[in-house]
Amino acid sequence: MTKKNIFYAQSGGVTAVINATACGVIETARKFKEDIGTVYAGRDGILGALREDLIDTSQESDESIAMLRHTPAGAFGSCRYQLPAYEENPEIYQRLIDVFAAHNIGYFFYNGGGDSQDTANKVAKVSKQLGYPITCIGLPKTVDNDLPITDNCPGFGSVAKYIAISIREAGLDVASMSANSTKVFIMEVMGRHAGWIAAAGGLAQEQEGDAPHIILFPERTFNAKEFLQKVDECVKRHSYCAIVTSEGIKNGEGNLISNSGLKDAFGNAQLGGVAPLLANLIQKELGYKYHWALVDYLQRAARHIASKTDVDQAYALGKTAVERALAGKNAIMLTIERIPGDTYLWKIGETALDNVALVEQPLPDEYITQDGYHITQACRDYMAPLIQGEDYPPYKNGLPQYARLKNIAVPKKLEEASIV
Amino acid sequence: MTKKNIFYAQSGGVTAVINATACGVIETARKFKEDIGTVYAGRDGILGALREDLIDTSQESDESIAMLRHTPAGAFGSCRYQLPAYEENPEIYQRLIDVFAAHNIGYFFYNGGGDSQDTANKVAKVSKQLGYPITCIGLPKTVDNDLPITDNCPGFGSVAKYIAISIREAGLDVASMSANSTKVFIMEVMGRHAGWIAAAGGLAQEQEGDAPHIILFPERTFNAKEFLQKVDECVKRHSYCAIVTSEGIKNGEGNLISNSGLKDAFGNAQLGGVAPLLANLIQKELGYKYHWALVDYLQRAARHIASKTDVDQAYALGKTAVERALAGKNAIMLTIERIPGDTYLWKIGETALDNVALVEQPLPDEYITQDGYHITQACRDYMAPLIQGEDYPPYKNGLPQYARLKNIAVPKKLEEASIV
Repeated sequence: MTKKNIFYAQSGGVTAVINATACGVIETARKFKEDIGTVYAGRDGILGALREDLIDTSQESDESIAMLRHTPAGAFGSCRYQLPAYEENPEIYQRLIDVFAAHNIGYFFYNGGGDSQDTANKVAKVSKQLGYPITCIGLPKTVDNDLPITDNCPGFGSVAKYIAISIREAGLDVASMSANSTKVFIMEVMGRHAGWIAAAGGLAQEQEGDAPHIILFPERTFNAKEFLQKVDECVKRHSYCAIVTSEGIKNGEGNLISNSGLKDAFGNAQLGGVAPLLANLIQKELGYKYHWALVDYLQRAARHIASKTDVDQAYALGKTAVERALAGKNAIMLTIERIPGDTYLWKIGETALDNVALVEQPLPDEYITQDGYHITQACRDYMAPLIQGEDYPPYKNGLPQYARLKNIAVPKKLEEASIV
Repeated sequence: MTKKNIFYAQSGGVTAVINATACGVIETARKFKEDIGTVYAGRDGILGALREDLIDTSQESDESIAMLRHTPAGAFGSCRYQLPAYEENPEIYQRLIDVFAAHNIGYFFYNGGGDSQDTANKVAKVSKQLGYPITCIGLPKTVDNDLPITDNCPGFGSVAKYIAISIREAGLDVASMSANSTKVFIMEVMGRHAGWIAAAGGLAQEQEGDAPHIILFPERTFNAKEFLQKVDECVKRHSYCAIVTSEGIKNGEGNLISNSGLKDAFGNAQLGGVAPLLANLIQKELGYKYHWALVDYLQRAARHIASKTDVDQAYALGKTAVERALAGKNAIMLTIERIPGDTYLWKIGETALDNVALVEQPLPDEYITQDGYHITQACRDYMAPLIQGEDYPPYKNGLPQYARLKNIAVPKKLEEASIV
């Protein structure tokens, strides 16, 4: 049997640590030179496979690959693309197999969220069906922390740390200004469907009175009257109010508050941003001076303050993918398993891709306090370990130094096909 | 002569390092116990003096005071309040003198921006006039970097570092997503009157093609057509476009773009946020998928990634204020002086308060490129040293540990006066 090559690709929204997983895959594959050929990375996720646009990672130095461990975002490019069902478009699968066969690819490692696990699962099944069975291993990644079975998703711990630090720092700022200036601060965070990231802000509160005072979850219907009363009580008690809101909060009809009708001067709908809407509401109804922030990509790209636990787990997933592939495992997603006990310990586990594809893990009801505006001790117990440790990147001239890969394409062997 | 006490207060928008200056004042005063009494801090800036609400810093442990060096925001509270002219309201000045006399205060250290230096100047002059001369020393602080004479303003270097890091990280994120998703990212930063902070984003660009590709300055009239063309060219060339915009960009009539007419569903004007307006414009005219962030207080409170140079300078100002006050200096603002040479070296200088009160230092014209959308080498040469070095705070449970002062009030000696 000739050595097979690995196809590794990054999918969906990128994170501060997805490249740490890539680093784990590539560094480990380089250690098993007897058994494994080259790691080819898909340029822009699976699009790279469909377009036969493979990146030859063997052309990168060990130093460059090592730098991936502390480089945010997707070094090979990502994409938002979901494979259709085989019956709908068999050509796409045939193309994948053709590309994989042409480049002697025996392993498909797909690094992404629920949609990506579905893609990995389809590739596992169809490749077998088509007589070119590929070893498929899903590598979890999503800041949304919404994959099932795995204890947590790499990428989430670092966002959680960034959000908790940011609201702690901004909270101190508002507190300083509250005597005769700003009294309310609102920070909008990601999470259209689930409040995992918003919940992480709650970790900043160590004592009664600490920021954040209020957290708004997509899991709870937004009630303007009740919210305003909470804000007012908080300002009267603490002289200021620091709020973390999920972008995904909804009204009683289940519609996103952020879609509730901002229009620009030309009458065009204004897209995005629930924080300014809440700020306007507070200003109008309570008269408090406010500030607001919307962190967007900053939260998931903030490698400068990534969680060490998160980085370690992301790397371990990549490393383990190679090991388990060599051990003959197939059609699995690797997971993080929490080892029960007083001290936080974890190991890499696995589950069948069938169990995770397209399944969403909601924020447990018992993580939100009875009143719906903060997190419970159960939530803290779960989340606190995930933000442990700092893993600072190296700096030069005052700025973090991130990998600059050459990303050299593997020469094409097939005719061009206009699939995607 | 009995030992005199120091009155120290924080004024205006707070920063990541203003407490480092407080730390310098208090630690140094504690070393000169023979010559100096207690450091009283004004609760909420000068309001604390007018309300006779002084904080007795001698009640804080050495450990707590040392923690101020790495604690963001204003530990004693700040305020937005400018002293009126003496002629307009002599009672206010009399009240100040009464409070200072009652508490044996001989030194007034005011830590703030241009308005605060004006206040310090007025106190210096009027106190002499009223027969209770107080040694007044202004300590510069402003993220806006707009004080004259001083080479830079403590607080700015840390914002600059945060902004440059953030756009570098988010830029990598957008680049990853650009194949078939987000192509444009806009980050809005502070700077209503001057583009110092926006300019700092430019430091992230080390090579052609790096983020940010476009910077929008309040010093240049916003031209929508030209801007859109730049964005389009950039996306076509690099596959994505990362933009830093100052909140203060203006149209041809000199009006803020951010005030250009967003209305909510109820017809109320929507306050703040030029980034979403630019994003909408891009979406409408070019059709590119976008993301935007507005960092607001996060940028000036981000002590977790403060510039070491900034922290060192902020601390040195506090230390030097005590030393120069003891040396008989009065009615001065301390400055950072850049020592000419190839290596960046600095020392603490001073200038008469008359020279700085209410004077604004604009971003030099030669710091903006000819086309108006980026920074020049001269700007890099000036700014790069200010973001040098990291000065990480200590962490516990994954979060930075910031000072929690007791802020115990000095017993009042005067009757209440409803001045402010």
